[in-house]
Amino acid sequence: MTGSRWSAGAAPGRRRGPELERAILDAALEQLSTVGWNALTMEGVAAGARTGKAALYRRWPSKADLVAEVLRAGLPPLGEVPDQGAVRDDLFRLCVRMRDVMHSQAGEALRAVLHECDHAHADRFRAVIWNGVHEPAHHLIRALLRRGIERGDVRPDAVDPLVVDVIPAMLMYRSKVCGSEWKDQEIGDMIDRVMVPMVRADAA
Amino acid sequence: MTGSRWSAGAAPGRRRGPELERAILDAALEQLSTVGWNALTMEGVAAGARTGKAALYRRWPSKADLVAEVLRAGLPPLGEVPDQGAVRDDLFRLCVRMRDVMHSQAGEALRAVLHECDHAHADRFRAVIWNGVHEPAHHLIRALLRRGIERGDVRPDAVDPLVVDVIPAMLMYRSKVCGSEWKDQEIGDMIDRVMVPMVRADAA
Repeated sequence: MTGSRWSAGAAPGRRRGPELERAILDAALEQLSTVGWNALTMEGVAAGARTGKAALYRRWPSKADLVAEVLRAGLPPLGEVPDQGAVRDDLFRLCVRMRDVMHSQAGEALRAVLHECDHAHADRFRAVIWNGVHEPAHHLIRALLRRGIERGDVRPDAVDPLVVDVIPAMLMYRSKVCGSEWKDQEIGDMIDRVMVPMVRADAA
Repeated sequence: MTGSRWSAGAAPGRRRGPELERAILDAALEQLSTVGWNALTMEGVAAGARTGKAALYRRWPSKADLVAEVLRAGLPPLGEVPDQGAVRDDLFRLCVRMRDVMHSQAGEALRAVLHECDHAHADRFRAVIWNGVHEPAHHLIRALLRRGIERGDVRPDAVDPLVVDVIPAMLMYRSKVCGSEWKDQEIGDMIDRVMVPMVRADAA
């Protein structure tokens, strides 16, 4: 990952602003993914980014601030879901994407941190999942259901906060309680057996 | 709670077996509900039960063993759900019951302990929720859906592990993520807008 950064002539000391910040965040994510939350140190991250501790503390007053930023910046965006002509396919695509975000390097680091950190920090890091995954997912699910209503394959009253919660609730429940990895097949089954019967237009 | 136990002539030293065990579990639940997991001590529980520490250690080698037993024994059973003639009413009754179990003294203590204890203990105490609430709830939901299929208001293929998970998933998700207390009204909305459309027989 660090290969191209140290090209001839670009001495580490010359990096500034966004470039240095990127290097620090990369190094911190790398540390988080290898040694974990408890063993991560500002010194270690500074060494990994080939800078000094002062460059870190200037930006983030504490390790928790740095890690929250690493996780926030590192989570891939959910993105958009193109219209595939059927609510079944749209919701499937969205769920696969949610799973992939949670299985990204930052997503895995986030789950590992939550398993390792104390409760005071956990609330802060959970907010990263909320803001980076759940909130955008809710927004997308509402949009996909509205698209389905216009298309005609979703019942007109399906855009409901409780209905919108079912996908994130199922993803969280089975991950936490059953340790599910949510393979494509299981996601497809969930869409076909839970979501489609619940939202389809041809129901009474 | 301890009023009737110390009736004249029944000296504390005379209690044995189940009676002493019950007094210890009562005292431990009381401590757990007032001082919490970290501050609970075997000494404190022994004092509360007017017995010696040895009586505790003879039964439970550690504080965690005692607390796991307190929580397990203290959770009210889910019980049965009488046939109310409609799957909507049966599922509503079940959800209200699940909420009430989680809001019982042992249920509240369990959630507080989970919020306070470290991860090593959390897995053990989560198993108490699994075995005491979720597992029996799954069993009941399957039975209520089968009853609905026989009655004719539930689609024939609704008894599906993913469908069965929706109620516990929603209860957990909104409690954890949104801090929902699941008032009767919200439970009714969830049954009407999520469960009934998903399982009803008149859907295509």
